[in-house]
Amino acid sequence: MCRYSRKHLEHVEGYTPGEQPKEAGFIKLNTNENPYPPSPRVLEALKALDTADLRKYPDPLSTELRRACANRYELPGEEWVVVGNGMDEILAMALRAFVDPGDKVVTVYPTYSLYEVLCQLHDCVLQYVPLEADFQFPQAMYTEQGRFCFLTRPNAPTGVAYPRETVRRFCETFEGIVLIDEAYVDFADDTCMDFPRQFENVIVTRTFSKSYGLAGLRIGIAAARPELINEFIKIKDSYNLNTFSQAAGLAAIEDEYYMRSRVGQVRTTRKRVRESLITMGFDVPESSSNFLLAQWNGSPDAAHIFETLKEHRILVRFFKLPGLENALRITIGTDEECDALMKALVSIVSHSV
Amino acid sequence: MCRYSRKHLEHVEGYTPGEQPKEAGFIKLNTNENPYPPSPRVLEALKALDTADLRKYPDPLSTELRRACANRYELPGEEWVVVGNGMDEILAMALRAFVDPGDKVVTVYPTYSLYEVLCQLHDCVLQYVPLEADFQFPQAMYTEQGRFCFLTRPNAPTGVAYPRETVRRFCETFEGIVLIDEAYVDFADDTCMDFPRQFENVIVTRTFSKSYGLAGLRIGIAAARPELINEFIKIKDSYNLNTFSQAAGLAAIEDEYYMRSRVGQVRTTRKRVRESLITMGFDVPESSSNFLLAQWNGSPDAAHIFETLKEHRILVRFFKLPGLENALRITIGTDEECDALMKALVSIVSHSV
Repeated sequence: MCRYSRKHLEHVEGYTPGEQPKEAGFIKLNTNENPYPPSPRVLEALKALDTADLRKYPDPLSTELRRACANRYELPGEEWVVVGNGMDEILAMALRAFVDPGDKVVTVYPTYSLYEVLCQLHDCVLQYVPLEADFQFPQAMYTEQGRFCFLTRPNAPTGVAYPRETVRRFCETFEGIVLIDEAYVDFADDTCMDFPRQFENVIVTRTFSKSYGLAGLRIGIAAARPELINEFIKIKDSYNLNTFSQAAGLAAIEDEYYMRSRVGQVRTTRKRVRESLITMGFDVPESSSNFLLAQWNGSPDAAHIFETLKEHRILVRFFKLPGLENALRITIGTDEECDALMKALVSIVSHSV
Repeated sequence: MCRYSRKHLEHVEGYTPGEQPKEAGFIKLNTNENPYPPSPRVLEALKALDTADLRKYPDPLSTELRRACANRYELPGEEWVVVGNGMDEILAMALRAFVDPGDKVVTVYPTYSLYEVLCQLHDCVLQYVPLEADFQFPQAMYTEQGRFCFLTRPNAPTGVAYPRETVRRFCETFEGIVLIDEAYVDFADDTCMDFPRQFENVIVTRTFSKSYGLAGLRIGIAAARPELINEFIKIKDSYNLNTFSQAAGLAAIEDEYYMRSRVGQVRTTRKRVRESLITMGFDVPESSSNFLLAQWNGSPDAAHIFETLKEHRILVRFFKLPGLENALRITIGTDEECDALMKALVSIVSHSV
């Protein structure tokens, strides 16, 4: 403990991101990156930038990118959108804007583990509500109240998208802000992006890190009514999105066709991989995301499979968290990457079942 | 006021950054950008990146860049450095790591106006201590105490660098954290970057936006003892510096010779511009920065000069703040830009003195 730091930070460990190996040669199915490159228009846009774009401050309000997002998401105008340095920044800002220290924040369990860390850092109280069987939306959520709710749809690490009507009913009953985290929604069949027009308490967030293949550039957005967006703009760092990311985001979102084609490939591979995993004996809920949660009750255990895959230079994600001890989260890679994973898995599990 | 937002944010207006005109054709001497492009090595490094660098997450700890900074600043290792999405993020994180809401934060007046906004957002109490005559360090600071102190050296918008020994004495007497903001220090004769090794309560911050000419890429750093740096790393967004900015920062800091040459040009121009301004009747403290504070007690007043320059498509900075009503902050541009400014100024002030 550092004598200058704040008491509530003493036991906070911070978020542990998935491993980013320095060496090449790993098949990386651990951080839900897109296996395909971003639109070629992104690289063209980046090459078109010149040194003047480096030495000058970026547009502090990212106006063009926000306008393009508003168009794409059929929102009335850019005053309905704010952009962040990755969705991480959007999520952290949401707590800073709408939650006082000590306030209650609600979410389901299991879900994206960053929420817990953000609540610890902000010194507010996170109330978990356990999911129903098959990772479905908890009935208990309809009687829960709080200042704020994080709701990931499709959920992570389960991949499950609750029905839109379920989420709508929850937004009607919850008195605080509901932040619907749609990081993975481009891989799903439908979205709640129309909710901000219907609910004054709903914020929908997106990232360019998954479907658009731009994790390296850190672009996240939030859509909500202008009176909520104004609060983000008031508290954000003035120049929170750099010139390159603004240009790249704009090029990416204007090439919807490209993104949709790549998402189609991922969905096709996802179906095939899920079927293979089920054949091998894994229990795998149907996923609306670019990953699968593969549950395994056999021997060797999931932790062992995780380690053995790593020896094969294949990285997947294993969470040391209650309820997830018997599961691996597997990002959908290219067909070749997934074939290599299947081959390794078969050899690991067939040895000892 | 939005019914969902936090009470203490109600009257916060947020920071107003200097104008970034969308149209071309302006001489921009208003936001302390470098008039010269960054090192050619930066563009080379950016061109060498490929699509894989876009679709994958960046190194969450920016290890290579932190190591290069530690080398450059003669610190023991990268555990003495943290990088941020611009120095803005570093400054905001410092309050979140070391200051509780309600705590007292100390700084001089006038100084960088962002500190006041950051304290409002964080709901802590900012105590201003007025500078002595000629913008010198206040004696009253030696008896001031608080949880945290922002100390800009060279100061902005005055350009004055207090003697190192003055700052050292203050660091010895102040019981909380002293953050020495060295945004402009490459334009000065000396630095306090050796203080973190001597004081357990000192953080020194730098930006790549000024001397390195990379405002568009948002790179800031903090140097301090590892126990303080650990607190930043605990609270920061996991992937707070994108792949491009990490690569650009690394290329820039490894080309010290280039930066020094450009800084030399700015310093030469600064001397000449100051002399001209004094000849015209402005009162201009000697500056250790890439800007000058030009004080004017004649007619027309400073606000009018500011507006008239804008009509000439020359942007400088005018602060509507107590003690700065009669001053313009002028960024040192190229010689040509500064000549255009001088010519316009002569025509404005000679009409009506």
